[in-house]
Amino acid sequence: MINQRVVLASRPKGAPRLDDFRLESLPVPELADGEVLIGTRYLSLDPYMRMRMSDADSYAEPVKIGDVMYGGAVGQVLASRRKGFAEGDWVAGYTGWQSHAISSDPLLARLPRDMAQPSLALSLLGMPGFTAHYGLLQLGRPKAGDTVVVAAATGAVGSVVGQIAKLKGCRVVGIAGGADKCAYAVDSLGFDACLDHRSPGFADELAAACPDGIDVYFENVGGDVLRAVLPLLNDFARLPLCGLIAWYNGDRSLRPLLAAEVLPILLVKRVQMQGFVIIDHYATHHAAFQRDMQGWLADGKMSLREDIVDGLAAAPAAFIGLLEGRNFGKLVVRVGDAADAR
Amino acid sequence: MINQRVVLASRPKGAPRLDDFRLESLPVPELADGEVLIGTRYLSLDPYMRMRMSDADSYAEPVKIGDVMYGGAVGQVLASRRKGFAEGDWVAGYTGWQSHAISSDPLLARLPRDMAQPSLALSLLGMPGFTAHYGLLQLGRPKAGDTVVVAAATGAVGSVVGQIAKLKGCRVVGIAGGADKCAYAVDSLGFDACLDHRSPGFADELAAACPDGIDVYFENVGGDVLRAVLPLLNDFARLPLCGLIAWYNGDRSLRPLLAAEVLPILLVKRVQMQGFVIIDHYATHHAAFQRDMQGWLADGKMSLREDIVDGLAAAPAAFIGLLEGRNFGKLVVRVGDAADAR
Repeated sequence: MINQRVVLASRPKGAPRLDDFRLESLPVPELADGEVLIGTRYLSLDPYMRMRMSDADSYAEPVKIGDVMYGGAVGQVLASRRKGFAEGDWVAGYTGWQSHAISSDPLLARLPRDMAQPSLALSLLGMPGFTAHYGLLQLGRPKAGDTVVVAAATGAVGSVVGQIAKLKGCRVVGIAGGADKCAYAVDSLGFDACLDHRSPGFADELAAACPDGIDVYFENVGGDVLRAVLPLLNDFARLPLCGLIAWYNGDRSLRPLLAAEVLPILLVKRVQMQGFVIIDHYATHHAAFQRDMQGWLADGKMSLREDIVDGLAAAPAAFIGLLEGRNFGKLVVRVGDAADAR
Repeated sequence: MINQRVVLASRPKGAPRLDDFRLESLPVPELADGEVLIGTRYLSLDPYMRMRMSDADSYAEPVKIGDVMYGGAVGQVLASRRKGFAEGDWVAGYTGWQSHAISSDPLLARLPRDMAQPSLALSLLGMPGFTAHYGLLQLGRPKAGDTVVVAAATGAVGSVVGQIAKLKGCRVVGIAGGADKCAYAVDSLGFDACLDHRSPGFADELAAACPDGIDVYFENVGGDVLRAVLPLLNDFARLPLCGLIAWYNGDRSLRPLLAAEVLPILLVKRVQMQGFVIIDHYATHHAAFQRDMQGWLADGKMSLREDIVDGLAAAPAAFIGLLEGRNFGKLVVRVGDAADAR
């Protein structure tokens, strides 16, 4: 059996390029006791992976050159020498960008066999959904009537942030790239408004969409969106700092935002800005997230659009597009089960 | 009787100049029922007053052109038609930059008649002391063994922050301008180290003084000091944002600090940055501050150097010097009681 995998070929300077990745084929080794062989079905692509490609100081070790790219995936057990896992089980874990994985990871999770849509373990029911839930509720602390602004509004995290904020009685203003995404946020996700950050009049449009100011800005983009948000912040606003997609590849704004434009506003408006990394909060908050999210899903109160790309070989280009906002919804790579037979 | 007062003559562009202020003499009007006439003895000069000179968006109304400059002062009651205040009482209130004030302000506070050093109501026992106490304990949340860094270390707020942090068992590293101030912070205030931010090797010296990183940075300066602090922050560090003296007059750093240099660090290190304005916290936290501070003072655990300037006419130049760090200790203007007789 052959494992197809995508490894990090070189550390990108600025935006990643296709030749920073390399597709490899290797034989799948024999299983040892305590291990399980997984056939990957869905691979999650998420902006944080850009940080793992870099050796700049971060909260996690970077992927080594030549190692398989890091990432969460959902798969099926093809063979098991591990207690508690049987052939055919659906599992979710950080098994990386590869068609086959051998795992003894204690955090590998078995999914319900009757799960209608296993890929949701990578979005609504997985890390992005948990990120949205924890960041909005614990750090954003929205009250009914608050105005919540969320960038990357149709992405895996942003679309959940906005839907939870609506459930909490907030006015929700999304920010996305392009008319299609904005229409989807309003029509399908139920946001009160959604603005295209590429519009020349974006800052004025944001002000008009937030007549009572902004109480929570869920920051996952940075750059020019943050610049437009700052003057609209209300006293005691909260800014959970979840990601900075615009800066992962280097700030390419026409006019770089100065700390002297940000910090005085945080001071006079008594704003709380709090960086967070969701891996810190599993022990304390994951159970509450699962309970809430499973309830909302069962009640039909939560939806998510998936943007599915076919084949592991397409992952690098899809990931590069993700950082440029070219995906529409949660970006997932479908890894065909044909590979299992080879 | 003649009231000498300093009014705002014009709004400064950048650093205030002497001709942004004007000294005036006016007759003191008759007292009405419910009013008290106060002879100012000590006028507090504090960096926040720079914001009150500007009409930029802030947490408080700016001083109007032609109005008396805003500020806290300690004085003695010269005449009273107000219940609860008698001639000779020491009082503290926001009576402004003037030799005589008529007040019916419900927040005017009577000080103990036997107070050894009434000017402490403007520093240790007043707004700066409360700012240090609230900001460090509620927002900085230092634990024993933490490293706490405080800029403007010999100022009214910074010197109290450092002393409280020492009482809590922290390693305290001050930052000040010049060898005299640094020696004072270590020898008299008991800081573990104090560094001169003007030193060419400042960033390296700060790193050497913080071998275990920085857990709390009490931010009251901004600019290049913040740049040196950022790479040393530990995971889950707290940054109470109390003031930004370096930016009140406009950022004059050689290389302006970019938001893209600050926010990614807040994200990957899960830092909390929280702006605060002390006027918000009197109802909830002032009693605890008074209890703690009076106890520390009585036990000889808290000291403060005053930098006393004589005469109201000297206030504008002293204030300009404050923003440039030319004071050494809490800056107070002594307003002579000779004026009462005129």
